[in-house]
Amino acid sequence: MKPIAQLILPEILDIVSRGEPAEIKEVLEQLHPADVSVVIGELSDDSAMALFLAAPREQRVAVFEHLEEDQQERVLKLVGARAMVPIVEEMASDDRADLLQSLPKRLADALIEELSRPEQQDVAALIQYPEKTAGAIMTTEFAVVPANATVSAAMDHLRKVAPHRETIYYVYVTDEEEHLTGVLSLRDLVLADPSAVVRSIMRENPIALPVDCDQEEVANQLAKYDFLAVPIVDSKLRLVGIVTHDDAIDVIHEESTEDAQRMGAITPLQETYLQTGFWDILRKRGIWLAILFFAVMYTGTALRLFEDTIKSMSILVVFVPLIVSTGGNVGSQSATLIIRALAVGDIRLKDWGRVTWREVRTGAALGLFLGLMGVVRALLWNTGPGVALVVGLTVLGIVIWAALVGSLLPIALRRMGMDPAVASAAFIASIVDVVGIVMYFSIAKLLLF
Amino acid sequence: MKPIAQLILPEILDIVSRGEPAEIKEVLEQLHPADVSVVIGELSDDSAMALFLAAPREQRVAVFEHLEEDQQERVLKLVGARAMVPIVEEMASDDRADLLQSLPKRLADALIEELSRPEQQDVAALIQYPEKTAGAIMTTEFAVVPANATVSAAMDHLRKVAPHRETIYYVYVTDEEEHLTGVLSLRDLVLADPSAVVRSIMRENPIALPVDCDQEEVANQLAKYDFLAVPIVDSKLRLVGIVTHDDAIDVIHEESTEDAQRMGAITPLQETYLQTGFWDILRKRGIWLAILFFAVMYTGTALRLFEDTIKSMSILVVFVPLIVSTGGNVGSQSATLIIRALAVGDIRLKDWGRVTWREVRTGAALGLFLGLMGVVRALLWNTGPGVALVVGLTVLGIVIWAALVGSLLPIALRRMGMDPAVASAAFIASIVDVVGIVMYFSIAKLLLF
Repeated sequence: MKPIAQLILPEILDIVSRGEPAEIKEVLEQLHPADVSVVIGELSDDSAMALFLAAPREQRVAVFEHLEEDQQERVLKLVGARAMVPIVEEMASDDRADLLQSLPKRLADALIEELSRPEQQDVAALIQYPEKTAGAIMTTEFAVVPANATVSAAMDHLRKVAPHRETIYYVYVTDEEEHLTGVLSLRDLVLADPSAVVRSIMRENPIALPVDCDQEEVANQLAKYDFLAVPIVDSKLRLVGIVTHDDAIDVIHEESTEDAQRMGAITPLQETYLQTGFWDILRKRGIWLAILFFAVMYTGTALRLFEDTIKSMSILVVFVPLIVSTGGNVGSQSATLIIRALAVGDIRLKDWGRVTWREVRTGAALGLFLGLMGVVRALLWNTGPGVALVVGLTVLGIVIWAALVGSLLPIALRRMGMDPAVASAAFIASIVDVVGIVMYFSIAKLLLF
Repeated sequence: MKPIAQLILPEILDIVSRGEPAEIKEVLEQLHPADVSVVIGELSDDSAMALFLAAPREQRVAVFEHLEEDQQERVLKLVGARAMVPIVEEMASDDRADLLQSLPKRLADALIEELSRPEQQDVAALIQYPEKTAGAIMTTEFAVVPANATVSAAMDHLRKVAPHRETIYYVYVTDEEEHLTGVLSLRDLVLADPSAVVRSIMRENPIALPVDCDQEEVANQLAKYDFLAVPIVDSKLRLVGIVTHDDAIDVIHEESTEDAQRMGAITPLQETYLQTGFWDILRKRGIWLAILFFAVMYTGTALRLFEDTIKSMSILVVFVPLIVSTGGNVGSQSATLIIRALAVGDIRLKDWGRVTWREVRTGAALGLFLGLMGVVRALLWNTGPGVALVVGLTVLGIVIWAALVGSLLPIALRRMGMDPAVASAAFIASIVDVVGIVMYFSIAKLLLF
């Protein structure tokens, strides 16, 4: 029961490359457009074009919408921009705006010029919104009915507009100035008395989000309310679009991947791992590695300060990896917990006091535990009680410090309007490392010399 | 336009604690059940109970469904299990099964005993499925119509069953043995000629997933096809449930958080950060810290092997943090990229060859870049060309090694049926560190002594 495209992909590729129209037609009938788009990604140019053009027009639109951006560009170039105009016209308005923004400017402009007037205006309206806001991910194809319509009139209206609406399961009610005044579902309409008036069954004061709302917040709110779609309003509270559940899922995937990459000290990739170019990935990793390289140099500098201590007591060096890695590990744990909790809305900025208190206690408990392990290890290595004590105290201190830095830095970054995930494990480790080295050798000097 | 609960929470709390029934009723009318559940979480026991009981029964069910598990238990205890039976009976079947599994066994058994027979059977059927499978997150409340019904008969049926169905936007068609034979949407029904027969407008061979399918795969498939719900079938291809879009979003959030926590070297928390108990969090962090503590000990052991080298040339020590942290950073970058790509399905196990080739090249390029930086830094520190060369070569070597370990370890873990995210940054760093130290001092011995 796995999706067809995965199970019998080789067989499908075989059929399509044989090029028998009847067989290709049968494949198309059995596959979901999302699967056809996967197949196209695996095909040679000729076969991809043959398969795409064999599809009936309606399916072609759906297949094209499901293609990755690089594949959309490929198909556009294969089929020819002019021939693709009818398909682009029928695309969902948010998918179309995304496509036109991802295309090379010349190709996009050529396409836009061919679109009919209302579509041109729609594209122009949508691409003005900044990336990663509600405006950038919403569609303008929502269903609206007047408050004074009867249920049966509303249903008739929905039947008429359904082919050009992203969803007709949520229906919005606006006044003369397009202000959002109510919402009702197709379920409400189906269950209502056909002669009832929309106003009497709609939900007033619907939840709506501003058009400049961050896309992650939009997705989180949609998830919180279990909505199929959430209405988006402009600064005058006029309904300008809706964000649907499938776009919210894409946003959640995208934001999670971005956060993971930031936390892994990588500038977020725009495309998937395998699609991202070699030089692009190099740049996005290299820049952070270079920054971290300079940061860790301070650890080297810190070590140089204690070169005499090291010379006269080289056994101390053996514990340096333990000190720095334990600090780094605890810091990265704290940062991970806080960054995720901020991302999904489990904690808010105002919780910083609770977080601090919790992390100090956790750090102290973990520090005692790990410090004791360090003492035992040192004694087993016959370093003598002095070094063992130094190791134990340093581990205790650095673990508390790491828990504090790891938890408060993401909150501080969010407070400054930055992405908390920038506080990557590696970045926190660098901060903690220097402190750890200085702490360690200072305690050693104090107690052992 | 922010959701009400956030904006005026203090005001709402004030109203509810004043306890004026008319005012409380007004609050309830204006709030979405999801917001009421947030408010309840902030209220004292008395006020929480007052607010909950003031809601009309239907809203009470929705509010209760939206509560976090610990709050559900609290309300159950406050209101009394017996009084809650009607509410539990009306809950969505998946939410109910989750509730009964999260409650203390005695409380759950007492509740189940009070449920009516069909609900008892439903609970028994749902809780048998292993956690994190399609069966564990699906609801059994889906809408079914026979293939030979007319559209208008199907609509009549939907109107009748709508209150007890999680969604009526997707309607499933089964044969006499409950095998899934078709699917159609409410949109299809609304647009169809009322006298048409369901068979003629339904989509045949619908995409379905097996009941033991991993929940992350279910969510990814639903996202791929932009479905509102995906049907779940048993081993005999009988329709046994559906997983809806809102549950898929919850799964995606949950899996992303789990992956982030694993990658941050924490055993995944069952609840949110602030809800998780102090000792629970301590255990989930401490166990990994202890494992990593032992792992990093090998780095100490490796350093001990070269104590003589260090004694005779202590300047070498200054670069140890650079070597180990650069290796760790590159390894964690690679692991992050691969773990996320595996999670969202961008790469599959069969891609390991492409991944290896890509990471070797990336590692070589990054290694040359960082190695050169290391050489320059060493020369600036007047270490002489010998040490500079040793640093440069080691950085080159360790970066390639780290890229390989970081990318192949997650793939290997997945291959062995484990979660790739177990390859946390800290874990990979430990493996890379030892190799880095041995590489560094071996090259130094070879070239400088």
